[in-house]
Amino acid sequence: MEKILIANRGEIALRIMRSAKEMGIKTVAVYSEADRNALHVRYADEAVCIGAAPSNQSYLVIDKIIDACIKTGATGIHPGYGFLSENAEFARRVQQAKLTLIGPSPEAMEIMGNKLSAKAAALKYQIPMVPGTEEAITDVADAKNRAIEVGFPILIKAAAGGGGKGMRIVERSEDFEEQMHLAVSEAVSAFGDGSVFIERYVTSPRHIEIQVLGDTHGNIVHLFERECSVQRRHQKVIEEAPSCILTEEIRAKMGKCAVDVARSVNYTGAGTVEFILDENLDFFFLEMNTRLQVEHPVTELITGIDLVKEQIKIARGEAISFKQEDLKINGHAIELRVYAEDPKNNFLPDIGTLQTYKTPKGNGVRVDDGFEQGMEIPIYYDPMIAKLITFGKDRAEATQRMVRAIDEYEITGIETTLAFGKFVMQHEAFTSGKFDTHFVGKYFTPQVLNTQNEDEAIIAAILATHILENKANKSNSPIVEKATSNWKKNRKSYH
Amino acid sequence: MEKILIANRGEIALRIMRSAKEMGIKTVAVYSEADRNALHVRYADEAVCIGAAPSNQSYLVIDKIIDACIKTGATGIHPGYGFLSENAEFARRVQQAKLTLIGPSPEAMEIMGNKLSAKAAALKYQIPMVPGTEEAITDVADAKNRAIEVGFPILIKAAAGGGGKGMRIVERSEDFEEQMHLAVSEAVSAFGDGSVFIERYVTSPRHIEIQVLGDTHGNIVHLFERECSVQRRHQKVIEEAPSCILTEEIRAKMGKCAVDVARSVNYTGAGTVEFILDENLDFFFLEMNTRLQVEHPVTELITGIDLVKEQIKIARGEAISFKQEDLKINGHAIELRVYAEDPKNNFLPDIGTLQTYKTPKGNGVRVDDGFEQGMEIPIYYDPMIAKLITFGKDRAEATQRMVRAIDEYEITGIETTLAFGKFVMQHEAFTSGKFDTHFVGKYFTPQVLNTQNEDEAIIAAILATHILENKANKSNSPIVEKATSNWKKNRKSYH
Repeated sequence: MEKILIANRGEIALRIMRSAKEMGIKTVAVYSEADRNALHVRYADEAVCIGAAPSNQSYLVIDKIIDACIKTGATGIHPGYGFLSENAEFARRVQQAKLTLIGPSPEAMEIMGNKLSAKAAALKYQIPMVPGTEEAITDVADAKNRAIEVGFPILIKAAAGGGGKGMRIVERSEDFEEQMHLAVSEAVSAFGDGSVFIERYVTSPRHIEIQVLGDTHGNIVHLFERECSVQRRHQKVIEEAPSCILTEEIRAKMGKCAVDVARSVNYTGAGTVEFILDENLDFFFLEMNTRLQVEHPVTELITGIDLVKEQIKIARGEAISFKQEDLKINGHAIELRVYAEDPKNNFLPDIGTLQTYKTPKGNGVRVDDGFEQGMEIPIYYDPMIAKLITFGKDRAEATQRMVRAIDEYEITGIETTLAFGKFVMQHEAFTSGKFDTHFVGKYFTPQVLNTQNEDEAIIAAILATHILENKANKSNSPIVEKATSNWKKNRKSYH
Repeated sequence: MEKILIANRGEIALRIMRSAKEMGIKTVAVYSEADRNALHVRYADEAVCIGAAPSNQSYLVIDKIIDACIKTGATGIHPGYGFLSENAEFARRVQQAKLTLIGPSPEAMEIMGNKLSAKAAALKYQIPMVPGTEEAITDVADAKNRAIEVGFPILIKAAAGGGGKGMRIVERSEDFEEQMHLAVSEAVSAFGDGSVFIERYVTSPRHIEIQVLGDTHGNIVHLFERECSVQRRHQKVIEEAPSCILTEEIRAKMGKCAVDVARSVNYTGAGTVEFILDENLDFFFLEMNTRLQVEHPVTELITGIDLVKEQIKIARGEAISFKQEDLKINGHAIELRVYAEDPKNNFLPDIGTLQTYKTPKGNGVRVDDGFEQGMEIPIYYDPMIAKLITFGKDRAEATQRMVRAIDEYEITGIETTLAFGKFVMQHEAFTSGKFDTHFVGKYFTPQVLNTQNEDEAIIAAILATHILENKANKSNSPIVEKATSNWKKNRKSYH
């Protein structure tokens, strides 16, 4: 594999190319018309335009990707994350074209891409699942007995459901019948099907996932966990490795389960097994993602393993060069996804031009991004600007470094999640490690960012005084310059 | 110590402030008139102008530094490297002003600042010295006997000498008398003093230094070695940790010697003990630097220890929080000093404006710098623009990453050591680990960078063809765009 095509854009395309370059592998970028000036296009050795901006006319069109490979002589394809990365049909088409997909087999994608088949595969290895009914039921008495077995609180959810419709949390056994009746009638009216599942309701869930690597020689290892409990709109925004809640014993157990889940589909390449962890540190299988995750850098920093290089080596047919017992956790890493979105407006995307864009530097700071000052965040794609990742000898240092790096990041022109990230880093629930996936709902309101406005008002007043005092002698003292520059910088990100 | 003043400028001032910020300590910058717009001034919480551009009117004026502390209420001073960092008088004046110097005692500086007293201190602990005469001699027969004892080749050097004057390498015993007569007469005519030292001439020396940390409770640890054998004009330009030549046994021995040297002066803070290593892996004490070194980041990356934070904690009177046996080498780090100088013109400084300045990013890349695009490199100070540091799981990965990072670095407007760094990274002597301090003299000529010109000429030709071919349909293919942009980028750095 001397030349690979990266079927993706933005930071992940650049990140993959960097590893390929270090391995002496040539890279081909593909790009939509909207991405003509994107950094990944400039960074690649070659680039091919594959169509109009909307993804279904470019990044999602299998034929165009395969054609670009043939045209440029690339023999491997790295799909990144999103787009075609978990598309089994794409994986099959790549095989048929005698190209190599840097990813798992289409079969593994297919099984793990479906909740029922994924669960069935995992059950072969006795992987713990959230306790509950395995099949949909309609009988109330029957359902109540199962609920009592499972233990309260429980969740009743419509078998045909989705989006929270027909979903009810029941705290006590005596409320069960009433809630079940309500759930069933909601389900009937919404889906025309009144059957429901009963499962244990995890009150304080933490999202823990395990990174795995499998090769074509049957070796599978895990690279420990990432905790991704800080989420907004049910999507991850802050991730870290290791999790501060796991004991060595539970870490080993979860690791083994993840390896087993991967083994159930003869997994090859990099994948992630997601679990939910409850207050008693019991964990349950959620799903397996059959691709590189956005948050993979935190694992790279604590293990010293370059995951993209491992993916490429596995795709070349090489055996993984290390064993489970060679792997050790070293230090602590935290990632903040810097999104072009407004935390004060329900984290809605805030697209625009990066009028100022200066990234933080120094010891233990990694910025994976795909933009430069002056560029626009296109409306067609995920509004992530960058991933800001800090590494320290322990969690406290990684957290302090994240605050320092956030303060150093200069973005104007659009709203971002930077100030939100600082709020989280300084929140007692986060620093103490006592938090769950409800963090944002519980602690975050737009007002918490307003306290910074007050500080700023004070600074502005001091600044004004300084300027007035200095006017006479026309002094341009750097203190005032600095305050002015800080104020300008913060004005946009805090307001 | 809630506020510290950084008595330095450029990258090291920023680097110190970053650690202070992560510790919640406020920072005060000092700056000369030439540095009014420098990044370290903007980054600090406060900044004080201390005079005109020449260092002896600003950064070297003890009174001004101490006044700036008193004025701003800073209680600690970090001197960085260079300037006042190894000035015992400064250290004393700081003490007298009831301020805390983040550095060793004036006594330790004084002893290690003088070759004879440093040697005398080290000899208390039987630290190996380059074999030779301990006192200057004039008698030829006597000298020859000592030379035979020491073993050939030997070096005859004028006791009053310096700058290579009166220095002779003697390969064989039969040439001794003649060479000694020549050396003595040269010494007499140059210095009016014909006495000489005889010492073993190390044919293939490697520069290895050990990082030490000592606290005020008597604890001293070492943080392994750095190898700094790639030098130009007898100054380090590429450093790495660990050294690829040391065995575990020699590493432990050198480490113990370094700790002993530090103990001989009750060393507190961060310091570096420099050794010369010969072909038989015998090592000899050279000197101790009583400050933070330029190349300290490579040690930070392989140990996970933030050296500036340790310096501050030690200055606050805290005991070092780890023991020797807690320290482990993890991975490999390489640093390239990116100087504003022209490798094709004997590495002479090439001062000017950073017309383009874009730093590399991604996994395992750290850039410590003090400039932004558009800024000028002032003529008054050391012409270092940045330190480019890469970290990988092993030496090969760190080297490949350095090449990738050099290719990613965009600097136009001035000549730099970037292309030279790439030459070293790709040279067999470096990659195989078989090199010494003569690397540049042995392998580097301005012509080696010219081969890249030839590549470029080929690229230019291809490019021209592409442009002509595409002219008809006015295609602005990104391949051509990319080639053009690469060509523009390389034009400056390679020619």
